[in-house]
Amino acid sequence: MKIAYKVWLDNNGKAFGDGPCELLQRVEKTKSLHQAACQMGMAYSKAWRLIQMVEKRLGFALIERKIGGRSGGGSNLTPQAKELMEKFVRFRKDAEWVLEKTYRKHFGSGGRH
Amino acid sequence: MKIAYKVWLDNNGKAFGDGPCELLQRVEKTKSLHQAACQMGMAYSKAWRLIQMVEKRLGFALIERKIGGRSGGGSNLTPQAKELMEKFVRFRKDAEWVLEKTYRKHFGSGGRH
Repeated sequence: MKIAYKVWLDNNGKAFGDGPCELLQRVEKTKSLHQAACQMGMAYSKAWRLIQMVEKRLGFALIERKIGGRSGGGSNLTPQAKELMEKFVRFRKDAEWVLEKTYRKHFGSGGRH
Repeated sequence: MKIAYKVWLDNNGKAFGDGPCELLQRVEKTKSLHQAACQMGMAYSKAWRLIQMVEKRLGFALIERKIGGRSGGGSNLTPQAKELMEKFVRFRKDAEWVLEKTYRKHFGSGGRH
């Protein structure tokens, strides 16, 4: 037996969780929503709609597109998206730890319920 | 913005969470799986299948039926079910508290992300 959980931010509906967080992390690395979506096995249109929905729920932009230029354009995270992503990653790690600890406190660690 | 989460016990699949816990609590109070299901707006057949599935995942019986007798029968929790339910309720309460605390630590309490 083990503990399982899902944790997300809510703002009049599901606003930000593991999926959007991973997508943003990959956008930050690849500078491309196309590539980020592809790496997650997600259609680009789905990724784009997801970002739009999250932006609406949060009330700020997550991704800014650079058009043309020497690098041929690409996507970047807004400063607010970066801050949110970093906070969420730290929060997520901490949440995992405290939940695991709370589980052990109540159910022990020997596999008994 | 606020934190939202789901937490459950996993044993090769979802084994025990809020739904089964509430069902057991209501069986304990009403001594009837029929009434417990009804109170939760759940069909009896669905409640019965849920109990069966959870029993299979956990590896022990949750409900024992008393047939006939002065009270005309009814359902009771097994000692193991009662123990699990009580542990889960305490765990759930603790988990809520630590998650809320962890959220405030990372996101503050003023409604900012």
